[in-house]
Amino acid sequence: MAALSPRLVAAVLCLLTGVLTFPLGPDSERPATCGYESCHATKANMLNVHLVPHTHDDVGWLKTVDQYFYGDRNDIQHAGVQYILDSVVDQLLKNPDRRFIYVETAFFYRWWKQQSSSMQQTVKQLVNEGRLEFVNGGWCMSDEATTHYSAVIDQMTMGLRFLNETFGACGRPRVAWHIDPFGHAREHASMFAQMGYDGFFFGRLDYQDRDRRMRSKEQELLWRASDSLTPPMADLFTGILPNGYNPPTGFCWDQLCDDPPIRDDPDLEDYNVDDVVKRFLVIANSQAMVYKTNHIIMTMGSDFQYENANLWYKNLDKLILYVNAKQASGSRVNVLYSTPSCYLQELHRANLSWALKTDDFFPYADGAHDFWTGFFTSRPALKRYERISNSNLQTCNQLEVLGGPASRKGPFGEGDSQTLKKAMAVAQHHDAVSGTEKQHVANDYARRLAQGWQHCQVVVSNSLAALSGSSAERFYCDNLNISVCPLTESSKKFSVGVYNPLARPVSWSVRLPVNGTAYVISDPKGKPVDCEVVPVSRATRGVRRSRGFAVNELVFQVQAPPLGYSTYSVSLLQDGPPPAPTHHRTPTAIQNKFLRVTFDPDTGLLSSLSNLETEQSIKLTQNFYWYNASDGNSESNQPSGAYIFRPNSSTPFIISEFAKTETVQTSVVQEVRQWFAPWVSQVVRLYADSRALELEWTVGPLPIDDSLGKEVITRLDTSIKSSEFFYTDSNGREMLQRKKDFRPTWNLKQTEPIAGNYYPINSRAFIKDDVDQLTVVTDRSQGGGSIHNGSLEIMLHRRLLHDDARGVGEPLNEFSRIFPEGLVVRGRLLLSLDRPPAAADTHRPLAQEVVLQPLLTFTHGDPSPNTRLEFSGLQAALPPAVHLLTLTQWDPDTVLLRLEHQFQSQESKVNSQPVTVNLQKLFSTLDVLGVSELNLSANQWRDEMTRMAWTPQTDKMTSPPLKTFRGHSSTWEVTLKPMEIRTFLLRVSVR
Amino acid sequence: MAALSPRLVAAVLCLLTGVLTFPLGPDSERPATCGYESCHATKANMLNVHLVPHTHDDVGWLKTVDQYFYGDRNDIQHAGVQYILDSVVDQLLKNPDRRFIYVETAFFYRWWKQQSSSMQQTVKQLVNEGRLEFVNGGWCMSDEATTHYSAVIDQMTMGLRFLNETFGACGRPRVAWHIDPFGHAREHASMFAQMGYDGFFFGRLDYQDRDRRMRSKEQELLWRASDSLTPPMADLFTGILPNGYNPPTGFCWDQLCDDPPIRDDPDLEDYNVDDVVKRFLVIANSQAMVYKTNHIIMTMGSDFQYENANLWYKNLDKLILYVNAKQASGSRVNVLYSTPSCYLQELHRANLSWALKTDDFFPYADGAHDFWTGFFTSRPALKRYERISNSNLQTCNQLEVLGGPASRKGPFGEGDSQTLKKAMAVAQHHDAVSGTEKQHVANDYARRLAQGWQHCQVVVSNSLAALSGSSAERFYCDNLNISVCPLTESSKKFSVGVYNPLARPVSWSVRLPVNGTAYVISDPKGKPVDCEVVPVSRATRGVRRSRGFAVNELVFQVQAPPLGYSTYSVSLLQDGPPPAPTHHRTPTAIQNKFLRVTFDPDTGLLSSLSNLETEQSIKLTQNFYWYNASDGNSESNQPSGAYIFRPNSSTPFIISEFAKTETVQTSVVQEVRQWFAPWVSQVVRLYADSRALELEWTVGPLPIDDSLGKEVITRLDTSIKSSEFFYTDSNGREMLQRKKDFRPTWNLKQTEPIAGNYYPINSRAFIKDDVDQLTVVTDRSQGGGSIHNGSLEIMLHRRLLHDDARGVGEPLNEFSRIFPEGLVVRGRLLLSLDRPPAAADTHRPLAQEVVLQPLLTFTHGDPSPNTRLEFSGLQAALPPAVHLLTLTQWDPDTVLLRLEHQFQSQESKVNSQPVTVNLQKLFSTLDVLGVSELNLSANQWRDEMTRMAWTPQTDKMTSPPLKTFRGHSSTWEVTLKPMEIRTFLLRVSVR
Repeated sequence: MAALSPRLVAAVLCLLTGVLTFPLGPDSERPATCGYESCHATKANMLNVHLVPHTHDDVGWLKTVDQYFYGDRNDIQHAGVQYILDSVVDQLLKNPDRRFIYVETAFFYRWWKQQSSSMQQTVKQLVNEGRLEFVNGGWCMSDEATTHYSAVIDQMTMGLRFLNETFGACGRPRVAWHIDPFGHAREHASMFAQMGYDGFFFGRLDYQDRDRRMRSKEQELLWRASDSLTPPMADLFTGILPNGYNPPTGFCWDQLCDDPPIRDDPDLEDYNVDDVVKRFLVIANSQAMVYKTNHIIMTMGSDFQYENANLWYKNLDKLILYVNAKQASGSRVNVLYSTPSCYLQELHRANLSWALKTDDFFPYADGAHDFWTGFFTSRPALKRYERISNSNLQTCNQLEVLGGPASRKGPFGEGDSQTLKKAMAVAQHHDAVSGTEKQHVANDYARRLAQGWQHCQVVVSNSLAALSGSSAERFYCDNLNISVCPLTESSKKFSVGVYNPLARPVSWSVRLPVNGTAYVISDPKGKPVDCEVVPVSRATRGVRRSRGFAVNELVFQVQAPPLGYSTYSVSLLQDGPPPAPTHHRTPTAIQNKFLRVTFDPDTGLLSSLSNLETEQSIKLTQNFYWYNASDGNSESNQPSGAYIFRPNSSTPFIISEFAKTETVQTSVVQEVRQWFAPWVSQVVRLYADSRALELEWTVGPLPIDDSLGKEVITRLDTSIKSSEFFYTDSNGREMLQRKKDFRPTWNLKQTEPIAGNYYPINSRAFIKDDVDQLTVVTDRSQGGGSIHNGSLEIMLHRRLLHDDARGVGEPLNEFSRIFPEGLVVRGRLLLSLDRPPAAADTHRPLAQEVVLQPLLTFTHGDPSPNTRLEFSGLQAALPPAVHLLTLTQWDPDTVLLRLEHQFQSQESKVNSQPVTVNLQKLFSTLDVLGVSELNLSANQWRDEMTRMAWTPQTDKMTSPPLKTFRGHSSTWEVTLKPMEIRTFLLRVSVR
Repeated sequence: MAALSPRLVAAVLCLLTGVLTFPLGPDSERPATCGYESCHATKANMLNVHLVPHTHDDVGWLKTVDQYFYGDRNDIQHAGVQYILDSVVDQLLKNPDRRFIYVETAFFYRWWKQQSSSMQQTVKQLVNEGRLEFVNGGWCMSDEATTHYSAVIDQMTMGLRFLNETFGACGRPRVAWHIDPFGHAREHASMFAQMGYDGFFFGRLDYQDRDRRMRSKEQELLWRASDSLTPPMADLFTGILPNGYNPPTGFCWDQLCDDPPIRDDPDLEDYNVDDVVKRFLVIANSQAMVYKTNHIIMTMGSDFQYENANLWYKNLDKLILYVNAKQASGSRVNVLYSTPSCYLQELHRANLSWALKTDDFFPYADGAHDFWTGFFTSRPALKRYERISNSNLQTCNQLEVLGGPASRKGPFGEGDSQTLKKAMAVAQHHDAVSGTEKQHVANDYARRLAQGWQHCQVVVSNSLAALSGSSAERFYCDNLNISVCPLTESSKKFSVGVYNPLARPVSWSVRLPVNGTAYVISDPKGKPVDCEVVPVSRATRGVRRSRGFAVNELVFQVQAPPLGYSTYSVSLLQDGPPPAPTHHRTPTAIQNKFLRVTFDPDTGLLSSLSNLETEQSIKLTQNFYWYNASDGNSESNQPSGAYIFRPNSSTPFIISEFAKTETVQTSVVQEVRQWFAPWVSQVVRLYADSRALELEWTVGPLPIDDSLGKEVITRLDTSIKSSEFFYTDSNGREMLQRKKDFRPTWNLKQTEPIAGNYYPINSRAFIKDDVDQLTVVTDRSQGGGSIHNGSLEIMLHRRLLHDDARGVGEPLNEFSRIFPEGLVVRGRLLLSLDRPPAAADTHRPLAQEVVLQPLLTFTHGDPSPNTRLEFSGLQAALPPAVHLLTLTQWDPDTVLLRLEHQFQSQESKVNSQPVTVNLQKLFSTLDVLGVSELNLSANQWRDEMTRMAWTPQTDKMTSPPLKTFRGHSSTWEVTLKPMEIRTFLLRVSVR
């Protein structure tokens, strides 16, 4: 659809001729006065109340996204977005003063393509006149705690691209709008700043924080969202909305509300105009007490409201009429239809200085015992599936570009990346990957991802066929984590293609389920590769159920070039009995050339970790525990649930003091397999070439026969003197310091000693002291904390028996047809021990390897003779500091490229330096004919991106305008400073 | 408002010039193709499915009428009629194929007057094009069981007049539409026929009746609704809707429903077009099996639906598109937007003969133990208040005419009859006088009636001032039933004006609360009048609470001329001790010159009744009982409630075998005061000049300490050999025969021996044998039955502890601030004993005297010297058979007059004869300058009223067209045949 829009072709032509303007829609003869120019006048000497009609449309929550769109399953929740948009457009047409904002492009897109061209014209006019304004404008309103920046940027790009192509400049949102997410990530603010938003509004923050900010009038502030980027590059003006995102009490006129309408016919009963006006003035004046300017905003709408917009607008028209009529008798309150950007413009005009904030808004609590820190871990399987899907999508995107047009229509039929792009985009929603949706909706997200991946597999197969010259059918094994792959289990001869989506070569350990006991493997050059056959672990056999019967795994190390693949040939050498039995006695230690890990032979638990290169060593014990989920107590009836984490005691139950162990020790891998309970086991694994220790945990089904909800953690207890500090990443990028029972911006009264110290861990967390830093890289978003000195705990899985009364209406109790007794979840933690100043040199690349993992494809038999067995899409690997974040087809002749400096400033002596890349010499198979730089979300030329300047209270220096970036696009050499992401549209031709 | 519309003045001018056309609206240049001409084409060789979008808007039920209009109190029920009409108009404009019907003019009127003139123009165009069609069109959809024909005709007239004046001919409904009332009265059908409706549709009938009719395809029938009127004058084609008034299962697309919308975007999940079409075809074909023609109707709507009409229409548009698209592949089903009149037209074109029905549709049961016979009595106080209010309104209307323009603006300020007219009109709603509304809504109806009466009191005072020549302030005593009237209680000298709204002189007993012991009274000619002072009864003292302290009542007989008044002067003669104590021993008998009543001295109960003129005598015992309301049992969990009557045993509990008695015997009145329990008492009263025995019952507060719901009846057990027959009136007019455990039209399987034998009694019931007829005239609507031979029971009061699950959501448990322990209700039954062939000669006038009772007004002191003490608005009394049903101001120069023959044919040897009245010689103070006859509802000239002719199956004779009435309007002499009502618009001038 949009990807082939003729107007985008026009955009590319503009690019070539140097006219760097995104085109308006084809119907833009009428001069547009949208955006700030279309705002209603305000009154300087009055309190101006900006009424913002809006709807909050979850892209899936209690119902699936399509059920919400159509208004299906209204028995679950009354909500139908198709009708909302129908109705709002109708009502906007009735009175040119009226305004509406729309947020979620996933829904708007669905609606738009069903409209007649005359309706589309009508809507364009409304947009061009600023009567319908898009805010935020991503495909969804992403979660901030559990999303990875890579997928967030993608979903924002997709939504904003649709708006840009459909409406031109008037469709470009000026304001970011995250009214519902459950706490706010600094990295999100940084991204929004780099996407060109002038300001950001949200609804939820800690109740103590809000109280303080109300008292000090700091509900509007300037958020400096990066330690590395030069201000104001990541500065974002941030406003906290007065009432969440709801209307003030008594003024909700949606069909979903019960507030009295304005009854202004004196001939009928219950005339209430005087009462309504009086109540409104009281609320407006009291709201004005906690904000700085003579402008206040009121959000007139809520979840799925405006399905019958007439109710709202009819009463709002009357409210404005009757409240403003009081000005004739001396009232100093002026009410108007407005939008967030019009409100923002007035705040900007006030020319004040604003409180500066440099930390984030986690964790979020809406009461003393109501910490929304459970969803950091909720639905761990979905969270992992989303992360793998992102990896698969990036691979799909890259191969679509590298393979050329044949990727979309090749020997394996028509494939597309759009399906998975859309599935990933909806999965970023704050009730999707967050795990706070109903079970059937979680199933729908997973199904969409699976379907998207099916479409992408065709692209991948086509592309690899083009690149390799072989049309042999490729098979995909998506269940390798449980040692299931029909082809490798049964085939005597097969090849393995390993595609590496990173811009540097990777070496990686492959584990394939097999039934033989000896194999020979050769690399792309025909060189033999060391391999070992090890028995499949008990835990894996337990969770596979009837989906695979391999008894062994074939383990070997592979290497793949940057943005390229290597092909390995595998031949069965020997069928026969399973390999030698494993040792049932815990070894004292396992080690490779980088690490040494010791175990306590009495307990079977880890006892120390040493880095042999740096010659550092720490005590390290690790075990599994569960918090007993509260089901309410005398202090509060709040139970743990999908959103809320509330243990009923600060002391978790230990699952077992001892682990039963088995050991596998081979030349390529060493494993200590630990068994704590029928529902908790772990493999401590050290590959021969790895600088990280792998802990592969398997948890579930959590037993609930005792009617106790359980929240399972693993805890690492070390000798590191962490002094109550620990560190977590923000959306997979910059690290934030956390301190126990402490918030940087207010005097915390801690009321939940565990839940109140939990933070989201998207990709890593670490503890450190002057000499040692233990970093844990996760394979998905999880919650965690450091409750004791030297200790780091990570929540792995949760099973709860009560709903936590935040709307989802289900206990988080996952089970399925395959897991009727409860979901079993498996994952990996990667541990690295380093000297603090050099730790990032390890964990940055390590985490990227987990995020973008090699994709394995399989073919039967030997490769055909002329097959190209090795390929790299790059002319050379990018420097270690540079991450290729995005490479995706944009239009037939253009690709979107994002390069990222993946180190923070100060983080690494080696890598925290500016680095330069030549775009023209980047690709091995593509000629880059032209380049132009875009903002982060790719909806505006970078040198046209001007943002409002805001003055922080504590910063004397006037920030330089962002114009410093102009001119970058005129050269092939691009320089990346720490934590910088630069976005380019490249005109390319396949060589 | 409408009363002064310039267009109505135009109508009167037409009348004078002989152009007997109701004018269209002023904007009717565009040729109108409304009504039958605007119907969509159907397909002769297919099954045509008429989709009728509609909303059912109760004029008060769970919320008050104005709460419903505005959408206030949506916490009780989501419903806002203002938005419904907004939305429907918007949606009709989007597609000219769409249709909508609107029913309740009380709501439409409220909406209309708030619209801009451009919106009014738009709506007129929709009406003129038949896209918006009014059906039924009365002010409300009246109840059929508990309403009196007089008030029903008034409310229909008011609603239809508004439509006529606003929209002209295109606004005139062709179809009556009573989709919700709980059973159907024959008199309603008769009235609808006489109002010119071509057909009638309803939704509720006995489930056994429906089953039989479905099997025999008799759900569409011809109802011959009068025994007296010549067919087809009261013939009404009647259709029973297929699904109540709801859409078929699975096809409800309102915001209040949860059925899946049509999901026709193949790119989204859950595409369901094929499934929807398939399900629809199954339903359509199965519905066609139980109807006669190749047309079927589907009611696409329900209670307060279409508030967001887009949901309905968007899906209906798709349904029509996709179902009809199947015709290309052989489907024989054709779906179309339609209206009841378009559907009716197709039935008429089918030219079939239809089953003939001559009884009614009471009682209504929707299950074996679910007889809707409780509401016949529910809220007895409201039912009585409504009936008194009708009497007051007719008096107000008459005096507004007779007093001339000064009535509306006279010495006492501006008065109006509109307020009470509207209050009475809404009170006719099927959840108003029926007693099936929530308590707060019942209070609202009563408040409206009280407010209306306040406005009317000004009219009455002004008019009487004009007619009498005295501007002395008039006082009204609305609490005489509990012996409260501050003026008479305290004044030593006062006059009493007695206005008689009947067209014949009446003699009436007056009872005034006083504190003196002796008075002299003189009539208008100065003649002394016999009077007596009797002590206020214990029962009255018990219920008055703090609202009056009179110890005595002054009783005397008054007479008042037709449509006129008499003034009586009253002077205190003697203060002092209360009158002689009453006899505490029950007398053997009381009697006057007409009747003799004996008592059993052992029990204090009645024992016989004799008519001394006819020399007939029956055994008669009477007592009070209560049924124990079921709260569900093993057969059915149905409890008794506001709608449903379900005793848990067929044997009621007797309240007391014995009555304690007191006796008052004076020359003007004799009373035996019976005391059965603290909550049941009665006065058996015989006035000197009365042919009826009065039983004044006082019941309440019903005790509920025992947690048993109670339904109190009085039962008359006689020696009459009634053979399981008894007789009840239909809406106060024609009598219907009832038989125990029997229905005339189907083979009844009786499942509720008491509730299933209850019928509505609006004004009277009787039992008879060959020689004796005992008639009971009631003062309000009540339920009753004849369970045993010779027995007649009437339910007086109900107090229930459970809701009966028909939506009202409250137990019928009436109490109030004044009656915190439960409502006390007082009423009167009037008994007459006659020979059957002459009984109507007594009960017809007797019942009219109860319906239109004299109005008493009071002035302090003596009348001023030139006061006219006596007046009649008529030149002469009308003949006994003729009742002046309506006399009300229409426009400044016109009045509406209805004359009624109040006897059935065959009912009376004397009175069941045609009778002729001369309209020109009717009034004493008005000259009648012109006359034109209208249909019953006054919205069409009588000689223009052409109705569709329908052929009954059992009637060989082809009915003559109604044209026989043409020409009546050209002569002053009008002849009334039994049960005929004739309606005239008179141009008058005050003499």
